[in-house]
Amino acid sequence: MELYIERGYDNTTVAEIANRTGLTERTFFRHFADKREVLFGGAGALQELLVNAVAAAPGPAAPIDVVAVALDAIGSMLDDREYSRQRQTVIAANAELRERELIKLASLAAALADALRARGVEDSTATLTAEAGIAVFRVAFQRWINENETRDLAAIIRTSLEELKAITRA
Amino acid sequence: MELYIERGYDNTTVAEIANRTGLTERTFFRHFADKREVLFGGAGALQELLVNAVAAAPGPAAPIDVVAVALDAIGSMLDDREYSRQRQTVIAANAELRERELIKLASLAAALADALRARGVEDSTATLTAEAGIAVFRVAFQRWINENETRDLAAIIRTSLEELKAITRA
Repeated sequence: MELYIERGYDNTTVAEIANRTGLTERTFFRHFADKREVLFGGAGALQELLVNAVAAAPGPAAPIDVVAVALDAIGSMLDDREYSRQRQTVIAANAELRERELIKLASLAAALADALRARGVEDSTATLTAEAGIAVFRVAFQRWINENETRDLAAIIRTSLEELKAITRA
Repeated sequence: MELYIERGYDNTTVAEIANRTGLTERTFFRHFADKREVLFGGAGALQELLVNAVAAAPGPAAPIDVVAVALDAIGSMLDDREYSRQRQTVIAANAELRERELIKLASLAAALADALRARGVEDSTATLTAEAGIAVFRVAFQRWINENETRDLAAIIRTSLEELKAITRA
């Protein structure tokens, strides 16, 4: 990540990453399919956490409340603000990475909708709730990595969700 | 579009499209940058319509109501259900096209948020409202191209927006 910031993503080779982190290239490729995976390897864990949190949410609850619980779990998992800031700087500077990020977020929304359907939520309600939830997450995440922001991510997610409710109540 | 359905997107050449439509290749390239543009060339017009509708929405209004007016304009513009169905079939079958569609929808959300900011809507409220609006559009569009659906797109968009309001009221 430091190298991506220093030299730019396109100008960084796997050999340089391996060297900086004290790994051999062979060990690097045992952990990451390619250098893009250094940035997106965490997406699987994030999705799993989200899906599990939806499945584990207690009893009959409104879909939006289930999503709130799941987002809370994500908010508690992402706690390295400086790392997230650096990662976002690298992604913002590269069109291919921006596209990859969009795709990962769309997958996250689709997985969230599936998890809601598995709880018996009706098809289009599941999609709408999941999309709204991911929109809240994106806005909250952007706020969280702002230079002067001090609240933790979970708190900002809760505020943003309240804001969405206020907007649609209008 | 017929060729994409018949032969698959990847197996269709510009020469074949030109031939089928009675154009020379040269004329084809005067209208489209490449064969992908046949599918996504309308995105610019859609975005312009959306942005103009937001700018033209009357006086002080809640952001969600402004978005409702703009979505109504889109709903009235898209009236060829059979074409939209075919287009979606082609896109769904091709990973590159699915990614392109995601990127176009993200651009649409960003443009909608910018248009709301230009009306004086606060930064994160604009983003949240725009993302929610595009989520409504996507869900409504999917319903509209369903085989047995007979309502027009504008009507389905209005229903889906009401559904989002009900979800977040929970």
